[in-house]
Amino acid sequence: MRILVTGADGFLGRGLVAALPNAYPDAERIVLTDRAFSATGSAAMEIVPGDLGDPDFIDRLVEPGFDLVFHLASIPGGLAESEQALGHRVNLIAPLGLANKVASQRPGATFVFASSIAVYGELGQKPVTVATGCRPLLTYGAHKLMTETLLSDMTRRGALSAVSLRFPGIVARPPTESGHGSAFMSKLFHAVRAGEAYDCPVPADSRCWWMSRAAAVRVLLHAAGRDHSWPSVIQPSVLHATIKDVADATSRVTGQASRVRFGSDLALQRIFGAMPALDAREATYLGFQADADLNMLATAALSGD
Amino acid sequence: MRILVTGADGFLGRGLVAALPNAYPDAERIVLTDRAFSATGSAAMEIVPGDLGDPDFIDRLVEPGFDLVFHLASIPGGLAESEQALGHRVNLIAPLGLANKVASQRPGATFVFASSIAVYGELGQKPVTVATGCRPLLTYGAHKLMTETLLSDMTRRGALSAVSLRFPGIVARPPTESGHGSAFMSKLFHAVRAGEAYDCPVPADSRCWWMSRAAAVRVLLHAAGRDHSWPSVIQPSVLHATIKDVADATSRVTGQASRVRFGSDLALQRIFGAMPALDAREATYLGFQADADLNMLATAALSGD
Repeated sequence: MRILVTGADGFLGRGLVAALPNAYPDAERIVLTDRAFSATGSAAMEIVPGDLGDPDFIDRLVEPGFDLVFHLASIPGGLAESEQALGHRVNLIAPLGLANKVASQRPGATFVFASSIAVYGELGQKPVTVATGCRPLLTYGAHKLMTETLLSDMTRRGALSAVSLRFPGIVARPPTESGHGSAFMSKLFHAVRAGEAYDCPVPADSRCWWMSRAAAVRVLLHAAGRDHSWPSVIQPSVLHATIKDVADATSRVTGQASRVRFGSDLALQRIFGAMPALDAREATYLGFQADADLNMLATAALSGD
Repeated sequence: MRILVTGADGFLGRGLVAALPNAYPDAERIVLTDRAFSATGSAAMEIVPGDLGDPDFIDRLVEPGFDLVFHLASIPGGLAESEQALGHRVNLIAPLGLANKVASQRPGATFVFASSIAVYGELGQKPVTVATGCRPLLTYGAHKLMTETLLSDMTRRGALSAVSLRFPGIVARPPTESGHGSAFMSKLFHAVRAGEAYDCPVPADSRCWWMSRAAAVRVLLHAAGRDHSWPSVIQPSVLHATIKDVADATSRVTGQASRVRFGSDLALQRIFGAMPALDAREATYLGFQADADLNMLATAALSGD
């Protein structure tokens, strides 16, 4: 099996790459791509840095053909909103070009796409399912939704066997990363572990959807086993909890007193902290799993980099 | 006001072009484009033939800047399904490029997009509204949906003031046109008027959504008056009637006995002839109107070319 990972040096990518050798011990080839790499890869994997916004790079990259592609590369939502041309190139044109090239080299290849709950837009109060109507409030979400639509159509006609995974903000991103509107959801964990005071911008009762990187990696690997009976868009299950409860769980598992002060940024709360319940029974039935509980979430969020 | 019409030599385009001088008597410029033109334009309009699948052509075409664009050009659904590369270029890449170029030359320009009810896919039994979930069954519908998503996002952030109109099959297309799966809906009118026997492929009780070209042109012109309070996707109202009732109405208004024999193509009926009710109250509230009744539909369908 020949495997390609894009965005391989990103937060989610590094977690997936670390898990690949165990998941695919007999892989013939594993190729990693990203704009640049902070670390050198292992001997078993090939590193091909480049710009997926450049169609010629995609052509060269995919020329050998791949049986399984994890497409994780994207410009984060906050940055894509201010840098529209960059977002258009990387978050829309690149996945369209990549999907077409993968399909032309290897019809029916498995294509796992890291989509986002940003596709939904304003969510209201009712439980969300994968069938909830989508009216994205950010260009980032619009591009993810357009890519989902293309991949579903390619899957319908057998060009690819694609699955789009609607991920929430994954925690805990390294404190150095920027461009994510949901950054506060990650900073919280680091601050509590360090015993530092943290001015969290949103109110204590802000209710978010939570997923650790370890859980997200399990979702990606499970999705790669897609068969033709699966839908092409999956809303994986998440933990639904207030930011105060997550801070408290982090305090418990780290043994540090929480010094989080909660704020009153209602605009930010509206986007990330007013999440209704999520009905992910379909994904659960297909074997996708969330973090087991808040303690496990906090532990997993603070493992790794 | 500077106005651009794409697909100006198509069935819907010719109807719109004929109505433009009355609708915009003071237009500074009206530019028509299509791959080729079957007729020469009037002195008041400029004809610029070309291929919207070519980004350089879009650049040249839109360089002067337009205040109002009617984007009607597309490859029909049946043809786009078999000619995937052509459909991708014309039905997806072209509208994305056109919308971006129009916005860059004239931010906030009005952009009226001829979308399609093909965005919905399988409809089930419940009344359809603009909020009904979309799972297109054809690449044509997927591309229309992706374009809607892009235009809605551009409208949200003020780059354009766009409106996507979900048109049903427009009747009665000239008998010479091909590529439309819904061709039987047009052939019916011509056959009854000519007093010819016609083997209609679908059963008599097939229930379709109907709109004459005259009604569609009124929808386009009304949409061009969009203000910022409007949603960016509109499901215009239609007539909901069986094909037998439409054949009978055509017989009444033409004075010809209907010699239509109905068939049993259930696959075709499933796509075009099993339409549930349409709840278009939102569009009606905004002033969009369907054909008044079946007699008016038949009369309008048989006027013009």
